[in-house]
Amino acid sequence: MTSIDAKRLLGRIRELGAIGRDSEGRLVRLAASDGDKLGRDRFVGWLREAGLDVVIDRLGNIFGIWRSEDNAGQAPILIGSHIDTVIDAGIYDGCYGVLAGLEVIETVQASGLALSRPLAVAAFTNEEGVRYSPDMMGSLVLAGGLSVDEALASLGTDGSILGQELARIGYAGAEEPGFLKPHAYLELHIEQGPVLEREGVPIGAVENLQGISWQRVTIDGIANHAGTTPMSMRSDAGYAAARVVTFLHDRAKASNTPTVATVGTMRLEPNAINVIPSRAVFTVDLRNPDEQHLRAEEAALAACLEELAEIEGVTVSVERLARFEPVIFDRRIVELIEAAAKNRGLVSKRMTSGAGHDAQMMARIGPAAMIFVPSAGGISHNPREHTGDAELVAGANILLDVATQLAWNGL
Amino acid sequence: MTSIDAKRLLGRIRELGAIGRDSEGRLVRLAASDGDKLGRDRFVGWLREAGLDVVIDRLGNIFGIWRSEDNAGQAPILIGSHIDTVIDAGIYDGCYGVLAGLEVIETVQASGLALSRPLAVAAFTNEEGVRYSPDMMGSLVLAGGLSVDEALASLGTDGSILGQELARIGYAGAEEPGFLKPHAYLELHIEQGPVLEREGVPIGAVENLQGISWQRVTIDGIANHAGTTPMSMRSDAGYAAARVVTFLHDRAKASNTPTVATVGTMRLEPNAINVIPSRAVFTVDLRNPDEQHLRAEEAALAACLEELAEIEGVTVSVERLARFEPVIFDRRIVELIEAAAKNRGLVSKRMTSGAGHDAQMMARIGPAAMIFVPSAGGISHNPREHTGDAELVAGANILLDVATQLAWNGL
Repeated sequence: MTSIDAKRLLGRIRELGAIGRDSEGRLVRLAASDGDKLGRDRFVGWLREAGLDVVIDRLGNIFGIWRSEDNAGQAPILIGSHIDTVIDAGIYDGCYGVLAGLEVIETVQASGLALSRPLAVAAFTNEEGVRYSPDMMGSLVLAGGLSVDEALASLGTDGSILGQELARIGYAGAEEPGFLKPHAYLELHIEQGPVLEREGVPIGAVENLQGISWQRVTIDGIANHAGTTPMSMRSDAGYAAARVVTFLHDRAKASNTPTVATVGTMRLEPNAINVIPSRAVFTVDLRNPDEQHLRAEEAALAACLEELAEIEGVTVSVERLARFEPVIFDRRIVELIEAAAKNRGLVSKRMTSGAGHDAQMMARIGPAAMIFVPSAGGISHNPREHTGDAELVAGANILLDVATQLAWNGL
Repeated sequence: MTSIDAKRLLGRIRELGAIGRDSEGRLVRLAASDGDKLGRDRFVGWLREAGLDVVIDRLGNIFGIWRSEDNAGQAPILIGSHIDTVIDAGIYDGCYGVLAGLEVIETVQASGLALSRPLAVAAFTNEEGVRYSPDMMGSLVLAGGLSVDEALASLGTDGSILGQELARIGYAGAEEPGFLKPHAYLELHIEQGPVLEREGVPIGAVENLQGISWQRVTIDGIANHAGTTPMSMRSDAGYAAARVVTFLHDRAKASNTPTVATVGTMRLEPNAINVIPSRAVFTVDLRNPDEQHLRAEEAALAACLEELAEIEGVTVSVERLARFEPVIFDRRIVELIEAAAKNRGLVSKRMTSGAGHDAQMMARIGPAAMIFVPSAGGISHNPREHTGDAELVAGANILLDVATQLAWNGL
């Protein structure tokens, strides 16, 4: 059984993880930044060393394509993820999947196997969405969900314009995103959650991806003196907000669906110790792999807010920040992942992706699925993000098997 | 029946309220600021015009004393409050009581009545506590609760030192605070709460002042991905904080004592939409006129936090920010206020002060009580703070009657 070159893959993950460190040693390769340029340059160097066709599209998405004379006309099997990072990132999120894609191609090249379809690896621009919104931008544009020009005009948190920054760092390519239409899309990623580690399972066969609903809720009450206003005469926006927080949490915890609910941000006004809050602004992050269930959670929030407005005398307004329907990945690819794991003597588990990934955009335009490997403690977006070497290698070998199978037989 | 000069009192309230406006027109006379100096200068000017002995103590407390040859050796009846303000203040808070004190003295002077005790009016330094901590500082020092030197060394929110600022504006006097030992202390103040207006009662005979307990609570949980962390694996500091907010509010609302509970400030970390909060920091303001009840509320909070630590897997720490025991005002003076109201055909109501006042400090060293007049909508610390002219005049006349009675007969 052919396997990937573990030393080469692990070495590259570490080498890329050392690029783009700030003066405090933090890994910061925000999209289209100087750090991102350094990471891209290193990745493109490896693509060229492997003899791949390197293509940069107008949005800065990087592709390394391995075609033979025989399969050049066929739609490729595309393996992708991203190499931009959050601030103070770990070294695995995104980078692992991209470098494993390259590793798979080089392994197949070395094996001498003649595939019926090209293999390609992609690093999508601005997956993290820290510097420019929305996140998963490169794959979203490729999938036709956002126009190139609109994306290039994105204003960064630092006042920069994405298009100008891509040109500045030399990654404003000529191809239209979408020039490459994959036969199937694969993405290998760390779980970024605690489930695989907790259950001792090395391979996640990701069959779907949660729908996401992001809303910002503003509750307006009446500011008043904390000492002189009897409880019965209050319209306390902070209390009403707290009622929403406990309602959502308790409801999600008691749910018999795998719903999650998070209030991650909260701001009170005037935010003074002895003044009843006149305003509370907070965000609600609801996720569920089933669209009907997700809508039920949204409806429950709306009903809770309506009831509070009536009971507490507050006024409520809701702003929708983001909404993605759940994604169902291609069942045939999921089964290939399970079969590959079994073939290598590894336990696998069908699971849901709780996080957003480029694969959810790519699933809009063709068959796609993801492979997960365990994340120690479920931690990511953090320098403590960690996956063991053996787990990284095992995941890359499953990617190798599935990609080879798809490039050999197609779906 | 002798009455105060309504036009003079109302004119002075408006004149003082026009002094110390910032470029946006907001009333800002923070303690020992340039604006405060202008207000003080005007007040001292009025004291001198009335022929009073003006004394400034080391902490900048201003006294206007009216002694006659016959009563000069007696302890005076002191009427006090403050003329410093919050940022964007109304014109009544504090100033009304100080100017009414002066008005009472001038009215008695004009009446030709020979009193057995001197009358004095005081404007205490830094009652609001916006620029320097603690609030009610001038009266606290006078009552022996804080040393003069410690108070003068207070560091302002703007990096200034109170002692230096008092010297700069010309209000670092020579007398030791406490040079004047009143026979009784009276304070006339707007209610800053909604009760008198709601009940249509013009005069509050303030018989006590709530105890105040201020605490800062920090709850530490575990930051984690909002999408990938199942509800059962969370340790959500924001949720735990919301549980405390609803617990305190619901408990106070259901209480059969007049307890009030407010969470006025809240901060989450990392405060990101898709990250479970690792930390919540919030303040708790508990008040009750009965010390045993206030302790019971504090104990209930502590028990709630202990239970949360156990159930939610969070760690909790509590910092005490301020604690004042309830104050019981002098029953004899409260009865004089009631009698004076009745004598002028005004309804009065025994009530509790929900806010802190200089009177609570003065009550430590002698008989004291307060008179309240209605606050429209219960609003204060706000330019919309309002009390009708007739109500202001009525309150000042009750102050006149009680002060005259005390200076005539003593307690």
